[in-house]
Amino acid sequence: MAKRVIIVGAVALGPKAACRIKRLDPSADVTIIDKDNLISYGGCGIPYYVGGDVGEIEGLCSTSAHVLRDQKFFQNAKGVEVRTQTEALSINRMAKKLKVRNITDGHEEDLEYDSLVLATGATPVCPPLPGIDLPGVSVVANLHHAKLIKEMVSRGEVENAVVIGGGAIGIEMAEALNDLWGIETTLVEMMDQLVPTAFGKEFALLIKNHMEEKGIRVLVSEKVTKILGDKKSGVTAVKTSSSDIPCDLVVLSMGVRPNTQLASDAGLALGGFGGILVDHGMKTSDPYIYAGGDCVEIPHLVSGRSVLLPLGSLANRQGRVIGTNICGGCERFKGAVGSFCLKVFDLGVAKAGLTLQQAKEAGFDPVHAVVVQSDRAHFFPTQQLMYMKLIADRNTRRVLGIEALGAGGDAVKARVDAVAAILPYKADISDVSNLEVAYAPPFASAMDIVNNAANTLENIMEGRNKPVDTIDFLSDFKNNKTRVLDVRSAVQSGPFIKKYGEQWLNIPQEDLALNMEKVPRDEPLHLICGSGPRSYEAQLLLRKNGINNTKNIQGGIGMLKFSDPVFAPPD
Amino acid sequence: MAKRVIIVGAVALGPKAACRIKRLDPSADVTIIDKDNLISYGGCGIPYYVGGDVGEIEGLCSTSAHVLRDQKFFQNAKGVEVRTQTEALSINRMAKKLKVRNITDGHEEDLEYDSLVLATGATPVCPPLPGIDLPGVSVVANLHHAKLIKEMVSRGEVENAVVIGGGAIGIEMAEALNDLWGIETTLVEMMDQLVPTAFGKEFALLIKNHMEEKGIRVLVSEKVTKILGDKKSGVTAVKTSSSDIPCDLVVLSMGVRPNTQLASDAGLALGGFGGILVDHGMKTSDPYIYAGGDCVEIPHLVSGRSVLLPLGSLANRQGRVIGTNICGGCERFKGAVGSFCLKVFDLGVAKAGLTLQQAKEAGFDPVHAVVVQSDRAHFFPTQQLMYMKLIADRNTRRVLGIEALGAGGDAVKARVDAVAAILPYKADISDVSNLEVAYAPPFASAMDIVNNAANTLENIMEGRNKPVDTIDFLSDFKNNKTRVLDVRSAVQSGPFIKKYGEQWLNIPQEDLALNMEKVPRDEPLHLICGSGPRSYEAQLLLRKNGINNTKNIQGGIGMLKFSDPVFAPPD
Repeated sequence: MAKRVIIVGAVALGPKAACRIKRLDPSADVTIIDKDNLISYGGCGIPYYVGGDVGEIEGLCSTSAHVLRDQKFFQNAKGVEVRTQTEALSINRMAKKLKVRNITDGHEEDLEYDSLVLATGATPVCPPLPGIDLPGVSVVANLHHAKLIKEMVSRGEVENAVVIGGGAIGIEMAEALNDLWGIETTLVEMMDQLVPTAFGKEFALLIKNHMEEKGIRVLVSEKVTKILGDKKSGVTAVKTSSSDIPCDLVVLSMGVRPNTQLASDAGLALGGFGGILVDHGMKTSDPYIYAGGDCVEIPHLVSGRSVLLPLGSLANRQGRVIGTNICGGCERFKGAVGSFCLKVFDLGVAKAGLTLQQAKEAGFDPVHAVVVQSDRAHFFPTQQLMYMKLIADRNTRRVLGIEALGAGGDAVKARVDAVAAILPYKADISDVSNLEVAYAPPFASAMDIVNNAANTLENIMEGRNKPVDTIDFLSDFKNNKTRVLDVRSAVQSGPFIKKYGEQWLNIPQEDLALNMEKVPRDEPLHLICGSGPRSYEAQLLLRKNGINNTKNIQGGIGMLKFSDPVFAPPD
Repeated sequence: MAKRVIIVGAVALGPKAACRIKRLDPSADVTIIDKDNLISYGGCGIPYYVGGDVGEIEGLCSTSAHVLRDQKFFQNAKGVEVRTQTEALSINRMAKKLKVRNITDGHEEDLEYDSLVLATGATPVCPPLPGIDLPGVSVVANLHHAKLIKEMVSRGEVENAVVIGGGAIGIEMAEALNDLWGIETTLVEMMDQLVPTAFGKEFALLIKNHMEEKGIRVLVSEKVTKILGDKKSGVTAVKTSSSDIPCDLVVLSMGVRPNTQLASDAGLALGGFGGILVDHGMKTSDPYIYAGGDCVEIPHLVSGRSVLLPLGSLANRQGRVIGTNICGGCERFKGAVGSFCLKVFDLGVAKAGLTLQQAKEAGFDPVHAVVVQSDRAHFFPTQQLMYMKLIADRNTRRVLGIEALGAGGDAVKARVDAVAAILPYKADISDVSNLEVAYAPPFASAMDIVNNAANTLENIMEGRNKPVDTIDFLSDFKNNKTRVLDVRSAVQSGPFIKKYGEQWLNIPQEDLALNMEKVPRDEPLHLICGSGPRSYEAQLLLRKNGINNTKNIQGGIGMLKFSDPVFAPPD
C-alpha cells in the first residue's frame, strides 16, 4: 500500500517536504492541510509587495516560471493534494490519525497517516495593549495582512505610520512605507537598539543612523503603552512612555511565537523556548511525526544551545531533510549558526553566529575587532566602504560571530556567508586570517577585509592593539575626558582641529617617529586614522617610545562619522 | 642585537612580511631589496590601469589613504629600508649572507641575515617565437609594461591588438583594450577553451560567448607560430596555425614561471612544478630561509598535490604568516583550494577547487550538476540569472569544486567563497545542501542556488536525475540524433517548434500526467524546461510510466541559449 503522509501547514516547509517526497517516491499519497486559502507563498517578500518592488501579490505565490502555486498546481504538477481552509484539531498518536475540520462547512474527519509532518509555523507576538484590535493595527504574518496594509496605503489613507518592533520585519516595513509611499514613519523599539538579537550596539547604531538619514524617525528604549483611536475611524495615535505619536496605521512586528498547540496537546516534547523539539533527522519525540520550520527549536552551532530561528531558508532546507527521511533516507539537519541578512535602504547588513552579548551569555569570553575597508581593491572605481565586526573567544581563539554592513550588499553578504560556513567547524582566528576568498580587483582586496578583520582581532587578543569602541570613545570625548591624536594628514585633520581645538591633535603617522616630543605623555590619548591601521602603527611606535596610555579607535574616522554624523567632515 | 631580516622582492609578499615583522618586533632590522625601481604595487590592477578604470599609475602603488608606497614611505611610516635597483646574486647559507649588486653602479655587497625571505615572484612565459622581441610585443608583468602599453594605446597607435593566452590576464587585457579604447582585439588561445586551468568547458564557453558578444574575436585551439613585423615599425601581424591576424600590439599572457634561480643555486629544494618547496610555516629546506608568493608551491587542499597558485591574495596572506614566524610565532599556511574570480565585461565569474578534468587527474570519480537560478528571490526586481556547476566525488560524496558566473558578480563570488570555505574540511554534498547562506529576498532565494546545486547533484549521483550537458546535447541535436520534449508552456516553446518542427515537442509539465500517450516511447528524448527543475519532475513522471530513455538538459533553456546564441528566443 502507498505510504500516506499528512502535512500540517502549506507555506514553506510543508510544500517543500511534500514535493520532495513525491519525487523520491512517486507512489506516495501526500496531503497538505492548511487553515488558510492562500498557500505556498514567500512571506519574507511581504515588505517588498507593500513597498512596490513586487507589483502583484501573485508574485509572492508563483514559481520562478510564473506559475501560480495553488491547489491545482500542486495536484497537477506535483501530485500533491492540498486541502485549504482545513484546520488540524488533534493527533491520535496511537491510531496514527489526524483529526481535521473544514473551516467553511465545519465537517470533521480523521486522516490516517504513516508519517505526519508538523509545519505549523509561528504567530506574531501581539501583546495585550489597549487598542491593539483597532482598525488600522496589523501584524505582518500572511498575505491577508499584506493586502490589507497595501490597500490602506495605496488608497492614500495613511499619512503617518508607526511600526512597533525594530527587528528585520519592522525595519523592512518602515522602509517600504517611507520609501515608496512617502508616509511619515516612526519605528519604535523597546530595547535600547535596533535588531537586538542580531547585532551588537555599534552596528545597530549605524543602521539607525542610516534609517534616520532616509527620513524614518527611530525611537529606541521606547515602550508603547497604548494604541489610541476608536472602532469607527480606526487608530489615531500610539502612546509611548514619552509621547503620543499620531498615526493612521500601526504595524506590529514584535517577533513571533512557535505554533505548538497541536504538538503540545499530543504530548510531543517541547524545548525551553516553547518550540517543538526535534532530533537531527527533524523527528519529534514521536518517531512517526516530523516537525520543522518556525515551530521547532534547533541547535545553535556556536552556542550549542537550542534556539528558535524562524527563517524561510531554514524551513526549506529542513523540509527537504524531512522529505528524504520519510522516504527512508537518513539526511541530517545539524543546526544553524544564525545567518541573517537585511536590506536597509541603501545598506546591506548581514551577520552570523553570536553577538558579543550572546557570546557572554553562552559562557564565552568574547573579544572583538571592528574594521572598515573597501569592499574591492581600493583603487577600483566602484569600491565602497564595508564595516565589519569579528568576535572570537579569548581562551580558545574560536570565532564566534561576524557582523558586517555596507552599500555593496552582496559583497557584505559574501564575507558573512564565507565566515558562517566555517563556524560549525569551530574555526579559529587563523582560519579567518587565511580564509581563501577569491581575489580580483573588481571584487576584493588582495588582503580582503575579512582577512584583515581576523588579523586585527588577533592583534587585539594578543594585546598589541589596544582598542576602544566608537560608542565608548564618543562618551569619553563628549565628556571632555580625553584627547585625540589624529595621525592622518594635516589636510584631513584640519576641520577637526578647527572644531575641537586643543582636544584634537595632529601628527601624521609617517612623521610620528621624528616628532615624538610633541606627543603628550601624561594623559590618556585616543588615536585615530581613516579606518584603523595607521593609528595601530602609531600605537606601536608610541609604545616603543614608552607612551602606553593610548587607545586605538576601532574603525577610525570611517566608523566615527557613521556612528555620529557630527563627525562627518564638511563637504 | 637586533634581528636582521633580508627580504628579496618588494611587490606584494615582501612588503607585507616586512611590515608585519616591524609591528611584532619594532627593534628588528628589516631590509627589502628589489631589482626594480617601482615597488609595492598591485600588479593585478594593471588591466584596469590600461582600461582606464584606474586613472593614474600611482593608484596601483598607493595605500588606501592615497599615500605613495615608495622607499620614503617604507622608511618613515614602517621603519623598513628598501633598496631598489638592487639584485640578489647568491646566498651563502653557511655564513647566512646574501650577495647583492646595485644595478646602477655595479657595487656588490654581502648582507648578513638572521632570516632571509625569498619573495622573488614569477616571470611571464615567453616562448621562443620568431618575432617575440619586436617592438609592440609586451608581456604584462610590472608597471613598466603597463606604462608601455597604455602609452601606445593612448597615443592612438593601436588599431588592432592580439592577446595571446586566454587566462585571466589575457581576458582582462582584451577587455581593457576593446572596452575603453575601441581597439579591434583578437584573443588567441592554444587550448580548446578559455581559462582551461580554472573552468570546465561549459562555463568557458559561456565566457567566450559573452566576450564575442562584446566585440572581442576569440580563437581557441589556435596556435601562434610567428609574430610578423620589423624592428623599425614594430609588429604588423600574428601568424597562427590558420591565418595571419594584422595588429599593432601583441600582449603576451601565457602564464608565469616561478623565479627560483637564487633558491636553486643555493641548493634549496624545489617542487615538481619548479616552485620553491616550503612547509606549513612557509619555511624552505633551509630553516633560516622563508619563501612565499608566486615563487613557491603550496598544497592544494582538495587534490592534496603541490601546486603553483600565483595570486596576490595568497602572497599577502603568506607574507603575514612569514612575518609572524620570523618573530617566533607558529602560524601555519595550510594551502589553498584555488579560489579564483574574474570580471569579464558584464559578467562576474568565480570558481574554487578542481575542474572536472582536474578531479579526474587527481584520482577522483567526479560527478557534476549544472543549475541556473536567480541570484535573489525570483520575485525581487533586481534578480539576475546565476549559472553554477558543482562537482563531487561519486564514492565519498566529497565536494571537489564549484564554478559560477552571472551578471551579479558579487553575488556569484559570495556563493563560491562560501563553498570554498568548507572545501578544506572535506565537506560532502549534504553540507552544501544545508549550507547556511544568509537569506532575505533582496539578496538570496529561500532555497539558494548553492543549496539547489547540491540537491541537484545528489539527485544525479543517486541516479534519479539523468542529465546531459549542454555541449553534448548540442552535438547530438545538431546531428539530428535526438528529439527534445519541452515541458514549458506552449507560448514559451512555440518559437522552438516553429524553428525545429518535429525535432521539438511540447507538453507542459503540469499537463504531462494526463498526456502520457503523446510521449514517444521508443526513442531517446531530451527533456528541457527553463532551467532544469521541471524537466527533472517530467523525467520522474515519465520513468513512473515506463519511459526511461530520457535525459534532462542541465540548466535548461537558460544554459542552452547562453551556450549557443542560436537558441536565444527572438525578442
